[in-house]
Amino acid sequence: MQRFNASIGVDKRLHREDIEGSIAHARMLAARGVIPEEDGRLIEAGLRKIAGEIEAGTFVFREDLEDIHMNIESRLRQDTGDAGARLHTARSRNDQVALDIRLYFRRAAGRTANLLTGLQLALIEAAAGGLDVILPGYTHMQRGQPVRLAHHWLAYVEMFSRDTGRFLDARARANESPLGSGALAGSTFPIDRQAAARELGFDRVTANSMDAVSDRDFLLEYMAAACIAQTHLSRLAEELVIWSSAEFGFIAIGDAFSTGSSMMPQKKNPDAAELIRGKTGRIHGNLIALLTVLKGLPLTYNKDMQEDKEPFFDTSDQLDLCLEVMTAMLPHVRVRADRCAAALRQGHLTATDLAEWMVARGAPFREAHHVVGRLVGEAERRGLDLSRMPLEEIAREVGGDAGELKAVLDPVLAVDRRDLPGGPARRRVKAALTASRKRALKQRRMI
Amino acid sequence: MQRFNASIGVDKRLHREDIEGSIAHARMLAARGVIPEEDGRLIEAGLRKIAGEIEAGTFVFREDLEDIHMNIESRLRQDTGDAGARLHTARSRNDQVALDIRLYFRRAAGRTANLLTGLQLALIEAAAGGLDVILPGYTHMQRGQPVRLAHHWLAYVEMFSRDTGRFLDARARANESPLGSGALAGSTFPIDRQAAARELGFDRVTANSMDAVSDRDFLLEYMAAACIAQTHLSRLAEELVIWSSAEFGFIAIGDAFSTGSSMMPQKKNPDAAELIRGKTGRIHGNLIALLTVLKGLPLTYNKDMQEDKEPFFDTSDQLDLCLEVMTAMLPHVRVRADRCAAALRQGHLTATDLAEWMVARGAPFREAHHVVGRLVGEAERRGLDLSRMPLEEIAREVGGDAGELKAVLDPVLAVDRRDLPGGPARRRVKAALTASRKRALKQRRMI
Amino acid sequence: MQRFNASIGVDKRLHREDIEGSIAHARMLAARGVIPEEDGRLIEAGLRKIAGEIEAGTFVFREDLEDIHMNIESRLRQDTGDAGARLHTARSRNDQVALDIRLYFRRAAGRTANLLTGLQLALIEAAAGGLDVILPGYTHMQRGQPVRLAHHWLAYVEMFSRDTGRFLDARARANESPLGSGALAGSTFPIDRQAAARELGFDRVTANSMDAVSDRDFLLEYMAAACIAQTHLSRLAEELVIWSSAEFGFIAIGDAFSTGSSMMPQKKNPDAAELIRGKTGRIHGNLIALLTVLKGLPLTYNKDMQEDKEPFFDTSDQLDLCLEVMTAMLPHVRVRADRCAAALRQGHLTATDLAEWMVARGAPFREAHHVVGRLVGEAERRGLDLSRMPLEEIAREVGGDAGELKAVLDPVLAVDRRDLPGGPARRRVKAALTASRKRALKQRRMI
Amino acid sequence: MQRFNASIGVDKRLHREDIEGSIAHARMLAARGVIPEEDGRLIEAGLRKIAGEIEAGTFVFREDLEDIHMNIESRLRQDTGDAGARLHTARSRNDQVALDIRLYFRRAAGRTANLLTGLQLALIEAAAGGLDVILPGYTHMQRGQPVRLAHHWLAYVEMFSRDTGRFLDARARANESPLGSGALAGSTFPIDRQAAARELGFDRVTANSMDAVSDRDFLLEYMAAACIAQTHLSRLAEELVIWSSAEFGFIAIGDAFSTGSSMMPQKKNPDAAELIRGKTGRIHGNLIALLTVLKGLPLTYNKDMQEDKEPFFDTSDQLDLCLEVMTAMLPHVRVRADRCAAALRQGHLTATDLAEWMVARGAPFREAHHVVGRLVGEAERRGLDLSRMPLEEIAREVGGDAGELKAVLDPVLAVDRRDLPGGPARRRVKAALTASRKRALKQRRMI
Repeated sequence: MQRFNASIGVDKRLHREDIEGSIAHARMLAARGVIPEEDGRLIEAGLRKIAGEIEAGTFVFREDLEDIHMNIESRLRQDTGDAGARLHTARSRNDQVALDIRLYFRRAAGRTANLLTGLQLALIEAAAGGLDVILPGYTHMQRGQPVRLAHHWLAYVEMFSRDTGRFLDARARANESPLGSGALAGSTFPIDRQAAARELGFDRVTANSMDAVSDRDFLLEYMAAACIAQTHLSRLAEELVIWSSAEFGFIAIGDAFSTGSSMMPQKKNPDAAELIRGKTGRIHGNLIALLTVLKGLPLTYNKDMQEDKEPFFDTSDQLDLCLEVMTAMLPHVRVRADRCAAALRQGHLTATDLAEWMVARGAPFREAHHVVGRLVGEAERRGLDLSRMPLEEIAREVGGDAGELKAVLDPVLAVDRRDLPGGPARRRVKAALTASRKRALKQRRMI
Repeated sequence: MQRFNASIGVDKRLHREDIEGSIAHARMLAARGVIPEEDGRLIEAGLRKIAGEIEAGTFVFREDLEDIHMNIESRLRQDTGDAGARLHTARSRNDQVALDIRLYFRRAAGRTANLLTGLQLALIEAAAGGLDVILPGYTHMQRGQPVRLAHHWLAYVEMFSRDTGRFLDARARANESPLGSGALAGSTFPIDRQAAARELGFDRVTANSMDAVSDRDFLLEYMAAACIAQTHLSRLAEELVIWSSAEFGFIAIGDAFSTGSSMMPQKKNPDAAELIRGKTGRIHGNLIALLTVLKGLPLTYNKDMQEDKEPFFDTSDQLDLCLEVMTAMLPHVRVRADRCAAALRQGHLTATDLAEWMVARGAPFREAHHVVGRLVGEAERRGLDLSRMPLEEIAREVGGDAGELKAVLDPVLAVDRRDLPGGPARRRVKAALTASRKRALKQRRMI
Repeated sequence: MQRFNASIGVDKRLHREDIEGSIAHARMLAARGVIPEEDGRLIEAGLRKIAGEIEAGTFVFREDLEDIHMNIESRLRQDTGDAGARLHTARSRNDQVALDIRLYFRRAAGRTANLLTGLQLALIEAAAGGLDVILPGYTHMQRGQPVRLAHHWLAYVEMFSRDTGRFLDARARANESPLGSGALAGSTFPIDRQAAARELGFDRVTANSMDAVSDRDFLLEYMAAACIAQTHLSRLAEELVIWSSAEFGFIAIGDAFSTGSSMMPQKKNPDAAELIRGKTGRIHGNLIALLTVLKGLPLTYNKDMQEDKEPFFDTSDQLDLCLEVMTAMLPHVRVRADRCAAALRQGHLTATDLAEWMVARGAPFREAHHVVGRLVGEAERRGLDLSRMPLEEIAREVGGDAGELKAVLDPVLAVDRRDLPGGPARRRVKAALTASRKRALKQRRMI
Repeated sequence: MQRFNASIGVDKRLHREDIEGSIAHARMLAARGVIPEEDGRLIEAGLRKIAGEIEAGTFVFREDLEDIHMNIESRLRQDTGDAGARLHTARSRNDQVALDIRLYFRRAAGRTANLLTGLQLALIEAAAGGLDVILPGYTHMQRGQPVRLAHHWLAYVEMFSRDTGRFLDARARANESPLGSGALAGSTFPIDRQAAARELGFDRVTANSMDAVSDRDFLLEYMAAACIAQTHLSRLAEELVIWSSAEFGFIAIGDAFSTGSSMMPQKKNPDAAELIRGKTGRIHGNLIALLTVLKGLPLTYNKDMQEDKEPFFDTSDQLDLCLEVMTAMLPHVRVRADRCAAALRQGHLTATDLAEWMVARGAPFREAHHVVGRLVGEAERRGLDLSRMPLEEIAREVGGDAGELKAVLDPVLAVDRRDLPGGPARRRVKAALTASRKRALKQRRMI
């Protein structure tokens, strides 16, 4: 039962927050005269000493003391006697835990947001390098229209930029101090909740004591944002895996991010990308875990809520690790521009251009679509790409002259014809590179 | 296969958004000269006619036309010929779908946020009525300290206020127009994305065409916020169920929100509350559904994404319904103040007060906690509540005089001693009522 | 509230089971003399008439009667008066619902198991046709060793065979009759539970009335088995999508299972496969939905459990549909043997063979693996496949003569060298075809 | 990247299985002459030595060797040179991992099944002790009909018995050896798969090499069964929590399974039960985690699958721990028979009996239900339980005489009137005790 009940194995990583919170609490108690000033000083000194020991690895954590809070307090009382025994005045483990986890969350959200901006910048860097690499854009894994590789990478920058915003929003929403909420109904001592909140860098105090000890919304919000971000990572990872197959061959991933096979001597597997993709499972699972814990729990604190930390810590650790690995891997992704270019010559990538050209000359779109569809069918029958069909034959069907049609069907020229905001034309992508770099740096400054 | 592929059964509810988006697109095309002005007028008139028929229920949806977009366009072409066939110029089903679902989401997020403010106001109303009802506050389903019923209800107001914020954030983040992103790479036509965006009330256009047709973050963000909100609802529902048990008996739920049994003639079951609690399952499940769909999908559009609408619609429908039912039920929750008052007399609810009173007189908290624990043990042995123990006996252990101790041990006086921001004291709760009402109304104005 | 509470929209599909169960109940009541024999006859006739009307579509379902049970009973009482009012004797809606859903489940489990055997047979058919098509086997999406296409398809047969077993196990475990469990504690009437159970084809009666009205394990077990089966489908679908890409090109999916693009005239998208893959989301989500509903529910029936049917029906419908579509699609998957063969010539697919050949001549495996790895590196530098390297150069490193090495490095010969039970050698695969066909037919007979 | 890629921290717990599997492999290789007999002996001795060191805690695990397999093999090669380097002949890490995890699973499934039988026996023990404790049975948390406490506990025995069956089924289905499947296509060596399978206690060898290295169905099946079992535990835990509230007070949980509060000196919280309930979250989450990992993965092994072990280990550990704690806690659950008895006197628990008594005298059930409903309403108005209403008044409405009606309305007599198989009558419950004990012991023997 002790093993079942104890959380020290998990919550010891809250030591920094626990001490930080206790110091702020002790200072406030002393300032308000709830405990003697001298006791306040002793407590603070004692806690700093313990902090030093924990950092140094010399502190002995005891399972029989159940959690990080009692481990630290028990030691403090050994060192400081009655002073230490006064630390818990006007406080319950419920608001103490709520404070610690919120402080930890605040750091974690900032750290993740920062890593997300780092990944954005790495993608922007890769995009800048791939500005003039043109490859097929896909829908349904089928070749669709040509795009710049930079445009492709920048699509992910958009995703990770939204992700960054979600973590920052979550942090802002939750930046309030639960300290002083007591077990569930505050305290009879004349404490100064705002003073402690200010000292800990909170924007305000929580507005309801019963909610404050019971609220884990911020963890859910972090974990939900993590699910979305990790889903984005999984999509990018999938593309890295597919693109590094022999069949696609658009990229080669550096050895530092690949591994071999124990049986097959020739293998070079994109392990890092696969693992990132695989990590999606646990991050989705962790959210379900905490949602399930909280479903149908009456107010206020219930022991079930001890199960909040492991899924949150795991999500935070794993997401951060995936972001770091992806950011580190991108510079080791070598683009094989020749394979990209070769892929443009198959898949009738400019069929849409031909249809749109017809429309610009007066054909209703649906009719143009139909005519070009027929031409593509004919090309298929001959085993040719549409762009290799005799131009006169095409002209017979759609009008125009060969020179004009040659340009229309050229997949490289096709890219710059898509000259709209958010489109793949060179000047648009260059503008997007600048704008997204600026935005990422702005987000970084907000952290 | 037609049945498998067709989405008309699900996406027909996007008819309003589809027509709204098509009209904006057609106007823009005409304004830019991409289609003749006359065609623009014909298209708009034709679409308005179709809208009228759909509203009137006379429009015939055809499964062989697969989806709402083709149903409407096909009909438009019947009515307007070449003009209708020009509507899809510079547009793909991919950006059309992305636009429609985003417009729908925008309305849905506003609607849900509005219902959440309504529920907040209903809870505030209930709280105002329960300002002077005092009952035990619980942790671990065990009686802890006395609180006002108003304080209890206001804990939920805090939750639903955060929820409202999440829906508004999600809406703001996603208020950008994907129209003009084409299939994946925009279009070769010189369209004006900003003009269409403005007409549709968007703040800006999406920044990357490949992302824009592929992005369903906003649905995930809505559904994640819904999971959190519904978890809050499940907690409130759980309490309504427990409180209306014979054993608790703190409330009685009106007949309109209860039902009987087919076998047991005496039953009055809290069905509405149970159903709300039960709906949590599908709302969690829907989020997992869409996360799973998107996991590992390469850019850009893949048919899997057709599976985005059902879970989103279901989450939105069910959450809104639960919010409406809960809001409607609250005024039918009759509080049985006598049962609440009776419950105060058991559970040693002022044990903490006694310990804190000792601390205020100089005892270190941990020591006071220990002494009071011993007194509670003695009371238990005698089958008494601590507040019914002979005051002299208590005085012998903790000092003070009988009169003072009597006040300390009174559960009703105990509430107002907790006079901190966010605490249950009368003036604090009154202030919280005012502040939370103001905040709810402010949120409502932002919708 | 009526709309919220009513389940008729969902549970009306239990009409067949409800009537079947009621007839068995009425017969038993009459046989035991609990109701007059004549009433028993009237009830049965009345129910059969209602069944006919429902089948014919003329029965009017009323939402104000809440559910299918009351819709049918209410109508029966209209038709038969007191007789109908006696049907519910010794029965509660709780055991009635438990019975109906269990009957429905029993059919559904059989139907799904049957479709799974059908899919196995379709895969075996495809495998038989691909016995001599050789293509690369992959790990990590990287080419590994050559295999027969038949061997690849048969891997899925193994999966679907296990799935079939799970559905049959679930059905057997749950084949017991809850009827007679009443609301929660049975009934005071001297009914004959076994007789009704026999009539309904159950193996036994449930052993505890409180469990019986509360048990939805069988739905969970079905839905969990469905999650696994659908995960298998998603893997197969993923391969169909990837293999039909321009880059892989191993297969072409028939037009009946592909669709085009509204913008890009050349597109042929593997929509059916993508949709099957995408359906995985809802099937996982449905399981979470019901697990979440049931988490922490006290005995016995709680209204939350009304939320059991929608996720179960949806899982059953969608899984069955996916199985049907996949089974129907397989014969329309045209294998492009030339592309498969071409793929064998790149990826050093026989590197393992060379290492194993060295081991057979005395080299420790790890050393052989290392030497071959070096040879592959050299081949890579020259842009050659290992099988195209000058044989003398290889012989210099590993011994042997050119003729022998040529055979070792031949990817087609390599397949038949893997002559182990469960391996890809021709005779092994032929045996597997026979064995798996036999097993599928045996499973089918058990349904 | 090393940190990201390495799995040694997680998979080192497979050391026993890895060595067991390697010994069987080496013996078979030697027996077939694939490696020298002497090497076989050296390998086995070396592995046994390593096993001893791991057990003794003196083995040094190295993260740079990535996983348990390479840690052991690398050390073996240090000790035995070429012999050790021959161990991996005819084997790949893919089939090695598949074997190890399957062996581990087999033990885990047996262990869990065994704990489930232990919990069944503990519940049967508790039930035997509560044979004559009568308390209200509930639906919708509202009092319904009286039942024996034994009947209530036995409902859970049914659940855990089905759970046991599921784990045993999963184990039987997966008891086949993947060894010899190689990386994906077996091996060119003439190994004897059946011999190794027999030595390792498998029923047969896997039938397809590509499936065998890719199959994690057994983990999913275990984890799905765990979700259902844990859902059962959560329901039992919920009842323990509710029943130990002041308001219900049906039980008191021993101090060894409760804890106090850091602030409130009077608290005794049912922590163990709450934690068990809370653990449901991670167990549901773990299933989603692995399902998500596997969704859409192409054949055969992909690195994502490294993410299979943590969720499985965690589910197995946590479920086993919850089963142990629940089993240990039950004897410490003191039943407060007085509180149970008192609860019978409120809630009109025999209203159904009165209606059924009327029916037995000829009234149609629906009419009887209606009349009794009216009587209950009248009792409610007077603040009485139906059983305390003047018997003559009741007789006026329903007939009969006072003596007869007194018996009908007696909640204790009511229990034994429910004398059906699976019902709460004393003789039925006694029979159920015997039958379920026998079944649990039989299941135990099958493990």
